[in-house]
Amino acid sequence: MKSNFKTAFLFIMLLAMAIACSENKNQEKINGDKSGLTQIFPKGKKGSSETFTGNAYNTGLVDADSVFTTAVGNVYFQPGARSNWHSHPAGQILLITDGAGYHQIEGRPIEIIKKGDVIKCPPNVRHWHGASADVGLQQLYIVPNTEKGIVNWNEAVTDKVYQSAQ
Amino acid sequence: MKSNFKTAFLFIMLLAMAIACSENKNQEKINGDKSGLTQIFPKGKKGSSETFTGNAYNTGLVDADSVFTTAVGNVYFQPGARSNWHSHPAGQILLITDGAGYHQIEGRPIEIIKKGDVIKCPPNVRHWHGASADVGLQQLYIVPNTEKGIVNWNEAVTDKVYQSAQ
Repeated sequence: MKSNFKTAFLFIMLLAMAIACSENKNQEKINGDKSGLTQIFPKGKKGSSETFTGNAYNTGLVDADSVFTTAVGNVYFQPGARSNWHSHPAGQILLITDGAGYHQIEGRPIEIIKKGDVIKCPPNVRHWHGASADVGLQQLYIVPNTEKGIVNWNEAVTDKVYQSAQ
Repeated sequence: MKSNFKTAFLFIMLLAMAIACSENKNQEKINGDKSGLTQIFPKGKKGSSETFTGNAYNTGLVDADSVFTTAVGNVYFQPGARSNWHSHPAGQILLITDGAGYHQIEGRPIEIIKKGDVIKCPPNVRHWHGASADVGLQQLYIVPNTEKGIVNWNEAVTDKVYQSAQ
């Protein structure tokens, strides 16, 4: 009996630890993204289908003004989501804070981007960026010198182009 | 004997899970900071004692150039660490990606800053920022319009001023 009690006690401890461990894993993860990315800034509002394919969420963090002349925000791309082709009159800097995805400057190969990467896209050059098919992407964007303009949107990235990255 | 075997098996499983769970908790955490902050960018180089009090580590992510005219980097402040008083000719934007600390614009009360906060410090205004006494701080900084200059460093923040925040 004493041994059975010990067995039961250890079994309960094992179960409790499994639950605690799995809760720790899910802490600060984004709902609906099986890749379990960490969220630092609010998820924001779903981007329009006129400028994004799939589910991308944008939160403005700094609005352009005449003092800082800089726009900053966070975009969370769910797996498979990407921006349309677009360009920035003064260029754009991307900081990848979690996940993995793709960035392509027109005419160049698709680059794989992931947590910790920093990407600079020059002024007036067409590019697109987004999540990989399986893992989402958390990116901060910085648009400098907004007195020159912020963004010019173009056509969607076709499935053929997107799938060529995989 | 069969029951003893079961007990031993469960005990080993419990031990293995405890180790796995603790490893998961420590994943991507910064060595030497008991507050266990998440690290996205490299920890970088220890900041000079001429411009920081305590242990602060700086990683440049984007160097200022004539196209983007923007400097971007990450500073990790260990608990108790803070910058000297300083100012930026074109201002500074801070994005707090983990932890908690303080920011003060000269002449104004000390603000508590934490993960998810965005701080704008206007041009040519003296300020300081750093970690709380108990929890470290991970911050991204953005210095716009670097053609006007990046930073002017001044004196250290005294313990009296720093401790008044607590």
